[in-house]
Order: sequence, then structure tokens, then C-alpha cells
Amino acid sequence: MAERATLSSVAERAGTSRQTVSNVLNAPERVRPETRDRVRAAIEATGYRPHVAARQLRTRRSMNVGLRLMPLQDGINGSILDAFVHALTENAAHAGYRLVLFSAPDDDGEIAAYDELLETADLDAFVLTSTHHGDRRTRWLLDHGVAFATFGRPWSAGTDPRDSVHHWVDVDGRLGAAAATRHLRDLGHERIGFLGWPAGSGAGDERRAGWRDVLGAAAVLDEAVTDGVRQGSDAAARLLAAGATALVCASDSLALGAFHRTTAVVGFDDTPVAAAVGLSSVAQPVEAAAAHVVAMLARALGDPVPPVLPSTPDRHVLLEPRLVVRDEPVSLAHP
Amino acid sequence: MAERATLSSVAERAGTSRQTVSNVLNAPERVRPETRDRVRAAIEATGYRPHVAARQLRTRRSMNVGLRLMPLQDGINGSILDAFVHALTENAAHAGYRLVLFSAPDDDGEIAAYDELLETADLDAFVLTSTHHGDRRTRWLLDHGVAFATFGRPWSAGTDPRDSVHHWVDVDGRLGAAAATRHLRDLGHERIGFLGWPAGSGAGDERRAGWRDVLGAAAVLDEAVTDGVRQGSDAAARLLAAGATALVCASDSLALGAFHRTTAVVGFDDTPVAAAVGLSSVAQPVEAAAAHVVAMLARALGDPVPPVLPSTPDRHVLLEPRLVVRDEPVSLAHP
Repeated sequence: MAERATLSSVAERAGTSRQTVSNVLNAPERVRPETRDRVRAAIEATGYRPHVAARQLRTRRSMNVGLRLMPLQDGINGSILDAFVHALTENAAHAGYRLVLFSAPDDDGEIAAYDELLETADLDAFVLTSTHHGDRRTRWLLDHGVAFATFGRPWSAGTDPRDSVHHWVDVDGRLGAAAATRHLRDLGHERIGFLGWPAGSGAGDERRAGWRDVLGAAAVLDEAVTDGVRQGSDAAARLLAAGATALVCASDSLALGAFHRTTAVVGFDDTPVAAAVGLSSVAQPVEAAAAHVVAMLARALGDPVPPVLPSTPDRHVLLEPRLVVRDEPVSLAHP
Repeated sequence: MAERATLSSVAERAGTSRQTVSNVLNAPERVRPETRDRVRAAIEATGYRPHVAARQLRTRRSMNVGLRLMPLQDGINGSILDAFVHALTENAAHAGYRLVLFSAPDDDGEIAAYDELLETADLDAFVLTSTHHGDRRTRWLLDHGVAFATFGRPWSAGTDPRDSVHHWVDVDGRLGAAAATRHLRDLGHERIGFLGWPAGSGAGDERRAGWRDVLGAAAVLDEAVTDGVRQGSDAAARLLAAGATALVCASDSLALGAFHRTTAVVGFDDTPVAAAVGLSSVAQPVEAAAAHVVAMLARALGDPVPPVLPSTPDRHVLLEPRLVVRDEPVSLAHP
């Protein structure tokens, strides 16, 4: 196995401490010339490349990017954000960034955390998720000149033009819900209901709009409930009683509740639970979203964008979701 | 809404920049006396408490704790680690630590990342997950005098006494599998099979041992397969053909596959998928595990352990799991 050269392997080969190797790289004047030569020979021999270290020392930057980890919900609807954290960690590494997680009870707590983290952790940038109407977090970061990008578009951009200036990546949920509605119509359903969240949620309103786009005047069977499996089950019963024969849902949590009442259901986010029970669902391309977010941050920070990341210079990226159609649970679907 | 005082609110009140407030706290000699007085009055008036900042400057420590985020698997078996990351982020904040995530392809990559992170990110400690036999990661950290704790016990401690010295928290999977087996026996099953992983996995072997503890000489129906829903489905078919009427499984991924062949199945980790389909499962107390890990790190680093964290001075903690019995999917179970 070819071991990767590290500060330790250089130190071992040169017969010095890690600190001495670090000094040769950062403060060579502190090291005796013969030790310096020995360490430099060891760096050459091992092929050690202190890229991140060197860049960091040159720029005096932390290379740390902060992200508030949202609280776990029921483990269904929130799993898309965990998948995004995985993708962000991988993609951040391509650009030499590391992800610093923090928690906060609400937006004000998140803003207070920005302030504290800028002071104590010397963060270079932030990534925000779960954007919503009247989002004070993005305004605070703009006011303070902090680099950031959001996974989720600025929902108040139409009413407050300042909201439209920042970097964002989002997935077109309206397209996704429209694809789900067309799929059910193609299966022969004429009375297709929408099971979503109360009006005012940016993402939820977009998904409802996609259902309306396809059905037009026939978009009448509409239930708005808070997210959750039981809420989905109860609202699905009402929609079916009102004559619906199929349901487009704003989340897999709602869809799972509906799925025990009828299998003509499409969920949203293609969670592991959807795969487990054989539920069709709209998948968000979180891997691509994370890659765009990191590329945007790199450009904003003046860092090179590695070839593995998207090279488009767009400040705003709206990705297309993909409908995943399932006939049966993953364990029964044979290849 | 009572806003929490921050560096920015102090600066605003004092009519200075955030940097000036920071200077008053850290290098007061650089600030003109009248500005210093104004900033100090603003700190007093706003009630600003620069705890973390102050401690960090006093100790010259980053307060950053590193964690390798393991790759996403099928979204079922790995979700316990995502829940642990959530719990760790919350609990780390209680002690003033932040979690720095990184990715690595394997153990050697993780060790190289330790080296690079110690050099460039000035981490105070690491948290490790997914410990296994012959784990080189813990030895490297011991050799380099780095503070760390593992979620997962040192599986080679019996053969290499050095492995037993570090801080660890684990969950007693043997107890959990025994509880699952007794539950199925209490339901009247006499031929209970075990559906687990190939021998050599520490956690998997413990779970198999718990099944054997209860069945003794009757523990004969045993399948060992790599983790996965389809593998679980296929192996369950073989166990049922061999006469098993109920199955204890080493993971919810395996159990989900088995569940479509018989409902007399108990899984492991109590994932959202188990709740969704109505599968009984053994739950790990990840919240308590994370709290113990953070308390151990605080003691190792000489930091105060806040009252919200466990005060036991143990270096090794083995927590009890809990069997969650379900009769039907969460959406159908009415309160």
C-alpha cells in the first residue's frame, strides 16, 4: 500500500519532530541550516505536498466553512439534509475546505452563532439551508460582508431585491411536482389530489404550483397540513373521501402516511423510506447541489475551482429533480 | 424577542468596529483609553459574555473536534451515524466545542487526515466511529498524544492491551440481540434464526453472541451475509426454508429484506425505515453516547464538564440498548 506522505512521515525520515518540519515550512529562519537541509531533503524524498497548509499559511485563512446542522425531524423528511451534509463534506475537501458544524435553536440563534464563530473560529464562509420568506440570516451575512451560499433560493427576492444578490443553489420543486402529477395522469388517474403544507412555505408553495400547472382547473382536491406521517395518513383519508384516486405529496413523510391508504402516491425527496416501502418519489440532486455550492464559495473567496467541481460561473443555479418510479419495495424488486 | 448580545451588538452600541471590540478583549493595550472605556461600558450594558472567545484566547486552543463522516450506505444502516452526528453537534456546543467534519476513503486516509488537520486546523481532539479489530487509527492517535474518544469499543483490546487504554463509549449489542431473541421466544417461536454479517466484525459478532446466549444449543439457524436489503431478503428465504419461523437481524437493512417474507423479524438500530414499515428493532441510545463522548473529551482536555453532560468519570462506558416493539407501521398505529 502506497502511504501518502504526511508531516509525520517527513519528520520521521528527517529524524526531527513534526514541529521542526512545520517550522521549516513556515518560519525557516528559526531552524538551524543543517536541520533545514535535512528536512527539505526528506520533503523531496517523500513527495510531501503541504498544499492546504501552504495556502493557508500564505493567505492566513482558516479554510473552514460553517454550517448549522438542522435538528432531526422524524428521520424521513430531514434525511435530504443529512445527504446534503455528506455531499458537502466530500465536495468541500476537493477545494481544501472543511465543514464546521454548529447547532442553533432558530434563525436568531444561527445569527448569534455566525457572530461568535467569526470571532472565535475565523471561518471563511457559511453554507445555509432551509431558506424561507423574510430570511434575516442572509441579510445579516450580506451586511457583514461574509461569504456564503445557500441551498435553497431566496424566497423573498421578488419583494426585496437585496435578497437576489447572494449565491444560491436550489432544485426546481415545481418541475418535480408537475412530473409527479403527469405520471399519475399517465397511469389513468383523473382526480389527482395534492397533499402539502400550509401556504407560506417557499418550497411547499412551489410544489403545489407544479401540481396546478398540470391540472389547471381540475386542481381542486388540496389538503394543507403540517409535515408528518400521521398528518399525511389523516389528510389522505379526507382527499380519498372527497373523490381523489391518486395523490401528489410535498414530502415523503406525508406520502408514507398516504401510502397505507392507496398506492397511487408520489412523495418528495426520494428518501430511504420511500425505497424501503416501494413509494415513487421526486429525487433532489443533492450531490450536484453540494458541488455547485462549493464552487460558488471558491469563486467568492478567490480560490481556484478544482476541475472536479462545476465550472459554470453562475451565481444562481436551479437544478432539475428526477422522478423515481417504483412498483414494489426494494427488497422485492428483482433485477 | 430578547436578542442575545454579540460582538456586533457591542460594537454597534459603542460606535466602533467588531475588530476594536475584539482588541479590547484580547489586546487592550492597542486601543486608546477612551475607546476602551466606551467598549467596556457597552459590554457591561449589553451583558455580552465572551465565554468561548475568552477561554479560547486564554488557552490558545481551537476548541475544534474532528470527525470523519463515514460514506452514506443505503440510507438505512448508516442513519444511526447521522443521528450520532446530530447528537454530537448539540452536545459539543454545551462544552464550547465545534465539530469539524472531514471525509476519507479508508482508515489510512483517515490517519493522513488527522496529520493534516493537526497541522492546519489546530484541532483539539478527534471522535472516531466504526471501530473494528486491529484499528490502526486509535494507535496512531495514542502514539501522537492526541486526545480522542471512540463511539465503539476497542475490539482488539483482548489481544492488544494498548487498545484498552483510550476513552470509548459503546452500546451493548449482545444484550440487545438477546432481548430481541427473548421477545420472539415469548411470542411462541421455537426456531429462531439469526441473520447477520460474516464473522470478524466486532459489533456483528456481539449481536450473534446475544442470540446464542438465549438459544444455547438451539442456536443453529445462522446466515452470514454482507449488509443490504436484497441480501437480507435472500438469506431470510434460506432460513425460512430451513425451518426458522422468526428472525433476529444484525441491521435494519437485513431486517427490511426479511420483513417482506415474514413479519416475525427484529432489526437493529431502530431506523426511520423500521418505524415506517412497522418493524420491531433494537434502539441504540445515541444521544447518551454523544453526551458521554463529549464529557470524556472535556475531562481529557482539562475543560470544565458542564452540568448537562454526564458527570461519571469513567473512561469506558457501555450503554444498554432498548427493544422497540411494533405491531404496525407508524402511520396506521393510532394513539
